[in-house]
Amino acid sequence: MSKRNLFYAQSGGVTPVINASAAGVIQTAKRYPDQIGKVLAGQNGILGALQENLIDTSKERSRAIEGLISTPGGAFGSCRYKLRSLSENRAEYERLIAVFEAHNIGYFLYNGGGDSADTCLKVSQISASMGFPIQAIHIPKTIDNDLPLTDNCPGFGSVAKYVAISTREAAMDVASMCATSTKVFILEVMGRHAGWIAGASALAASERGDAPHIILFPEIAFDRDQFLKRVAECVERYGYCVIVASEGASTADGKLLSDQGERDAFGHAQLGGLAPLLAEMIRDTLGYKYHWAVADYLQRAARHIASQTDVDQAFALGKAAVQVAVAGANAVMPAIKRTSNHPYRWSIEPVPLSRVANREKKMPRRFITRDGFGITPQARAYFEPLIAGEAYPQYQRGLPRYTRLKQVLVPKRCPSWRRP
Amino acid sequence: MSKRNLFYAQSGGVTPVINASAAGVIQTAKRYPDQIGKVLAGQNGILGALQENLIDTSKERSRAIEGLISTPGGAFGSCRYKLRSLSENRAEYERLIAVFEAHNIGYFLYNGGGDSADTCLKVSQISASMGFPIQAIHIPKTIDNDLPLTDNCPGFGSVAKYVAISTREAAMDVASMCATSTKVFILEVMGRHAGWIAGASALAASERGDAPHIILFPEIAFDRDQFLKRVAECVERYGYCVIVASEGASTADGKLLSDQGERDAFGHAQLGGLAPLLAEMIRDTLGYKYHWAVADYLQRAARHIASQTDVDQAFALGKAAVQVAVAGANAVMPAIKRTSNHPYRWSIEPVPLSRVANREKKMPRRFITRDGFGITPQARAYFEPLIAGEAYPQYQRGLPRYTRLKQVLVPKRCPSWRRP
Repeated sequence: MSKRNLFYAQSGGVTPVINASAAGVIQTAKRYPDQIGKVLAGQNGILGALQENLIDTSKERSRAIEGLISTPGGAFGSCRYKLRSLSENRAEYERLIAVFEAHNIGYFLYNGGGDSADTCLKVSQISASMGFPIQAIHIPKTIDNDLPLTDNCPGFGSVAKYVAISTREAAMDVASMCATSTKVFILEVMGRHAGWIAGASALAASERGDAPHIILFPEIAFDRDQFLKRVAECVERYGYCVIVASEGASTADGKLLSDQGERDAFGHAQLGGLAPLLAEMIRDTLGYKYHWAVADYLQRAARHIASQTDVDQAFALGKAAVQVAVAGANAVMPAIKRTSNHPYRWSIEPVPLSRVANREKKMPRRFITRDGFGITPQARAYFEPLIAGEAYPQYQRGLPRYTRLKQVLVPKRCPSWRRP
Repeated sequence: MSKRNLFYAQSGGVTPVINASAAGVIQTAKRYPDQIGKVLAGQNGILGALQENLIDTSKERSRAIEGLISTPGGAFGSCRYKLRSLSENRAEYERLIAVFEAHNIGYFLYNGGGDSADTCLKVSQISASMGFPIQAIHIPKTIDNDLPLTDNCPGFGSVAKYVAISTREAAMDVASMCATSTKVFILEVMGRHAGWIAGASALAASERGDAPHIILFPEIAFDRDQFLKRVAECVERYGYCVIVASEGASTADGKLLSDQGERDAFGHAQLGGLAPLLAEMIRDTLGYKYHWAVADYLQRAARHIASQTDVDQAFALGKAAVQVAVAGANAVMPAIKRTSNHPYRWSIEPVPLSRVANREKKMPRRFITRDGFGITPQARAYFEPLIAGEAYPQYQRGLPRYTRLKQVLVPKRCPSWRRP
């Protein structure tokens, strides 16, 4: 096989560990000098390829690449930019392939969620049909944990850990105050369509009666009366009530509780504000004093308390993506396979992208208690290993020392391009 | 001096390190067996004294007391219960003294903020006038950092650390996404009247242009036009804008931006919801895509990333309170005195409670940049040592192992009491 360059890009919402996958890719690619030339990273994801803004990762110090393992955010820039279908915008795909050809790119490693898996598959298909075949490998990433065919998604374990810890801590605060003050605390967490993150908050509880007392899942239709009844029961029984609500919580007719009509680039509803809405509902009917928090990006960037399992898996998947690429694979995603719960063991196996793209894995009903407000022991057994271990970053003057890249771009070889 | 028991109680909003002060009190009291009998802790703060719900701390294992050093919340329960003035409700004070007399309590150690300092002073005064003199010592605690005469307040350093880390992390997330998606991120933090917490977020920045780009302080009148102009400038210059807003941000007429009319037991406005308000303001005028977070109790309970300086000081102040008590002091608060910035050195000196009670220390104007949106080098020098060091708790199964007390109550000796 002739030596070709590797293109790597980050896509969609970033995670605390997506850069660990990048480090896995870059460090592993160096081990195959006969097959892989440079690793060129897209500046701001796939836009970097379209605009021919390609970061030459060989210009970064190896210490900086190592530092990516403990750096949150997307070090090369990510983007929310969904390539349209081939019939709608063939020119965009042709531009991509032209840039790849100009830079002798033979490997396309795309680090993202479900939408990106679809893009990755299309790149593989169109490049073949255009006579410049590119091996397209998808590296899974999403805090939502909603990709199919993989035990879990890198990014999720760390967010789960952050949310479980935060729930435990905030609950201790409320428990201290509830005799005379706050009786209800609501934490709104991410998860548009799947309740994995909300569900993981249940790990905060270790004894009966522990918080969280109520979890609202997107998978369970929200019933106002049942919800308020349960809140009152908890305050009655425990003195306080802690609620973890997924931003995707919806009513039986499928309408999001918090939908305010905004849409993002993918046409998804822009969410937020469910916690204050629930708080008002409780105040107006039950009259309890409440507090609420919306963790938003804090949960998604909290590298300071990342899960060691998560960091290890993110790195391993980046590494595996390079390994399967040099072994000749195409249109696949290295996936995590759980081989044992106690002790937790896992391996990596490539799965065909055609079976990954545009499918969402929701919380199975057997993971949610019959009343719809909690998780089952089966779910707990699934979640627990994913938050194991504390992968602390290094600190300097009281703050984590996160890596900044130089982002040196390679000279352009193509005509300039504008977003259509 | 005859041997008398010591009463300890936690008051007002809890902190990540208030239990470290409790540990300091309990462990130090054991060293004075000739002067101090038992340490009895009020269950739910001062209410525990009024209701004669006194926790016998000698029934807790010494490992549990040690564990308090790394446990957030208020392990004995706190309360928001302000004793009225002597003229308004003398009976309440008489009840307190009756309970203290029944349990041979000679030391009253009250761990709280400004309101509690006032209560502490009154207990000292009324007990003397009733012929059962009690030595009243106030142990400072408040995440708001607004007590006078002390360099800083235990609890603040850890919240400052959490907020600075969260700001740095979330900013990296936004920076990754801003090319095609979120351009503005708003983090709402606590601080009713003083901008210390918001100000500490500035530690997240290490280079020019780093987040946070705009801080909203309660001390600086909010000017909508100036604010929006600066947001637009930041997005123009850096591609994104990170705003940290104190919940106490107010307009020039002194009206809170976020005041929704709710009041707590102390008559303070119940705040929250400033971040979404600012987000709407930005959307409606500038049209940028935004995200916002409200950390609320998460910041106040985040023992998982407490400042080592803060934990050390909280413990030392509990210890000092006992030491000054056995030395005969009354109506004082042990305060932190900063003796050097580089290296950071501090000592503890008692200050008279009459000079502490009901006074708020705001951010001095010289700590805030001329434009009102940032902090000065002087402020940075003040903040930096307070967030130094990571006092990690122990973990079990991926979660911090926090201490739970048995809370064994001593038998009651007084008639029952009802809140008037």
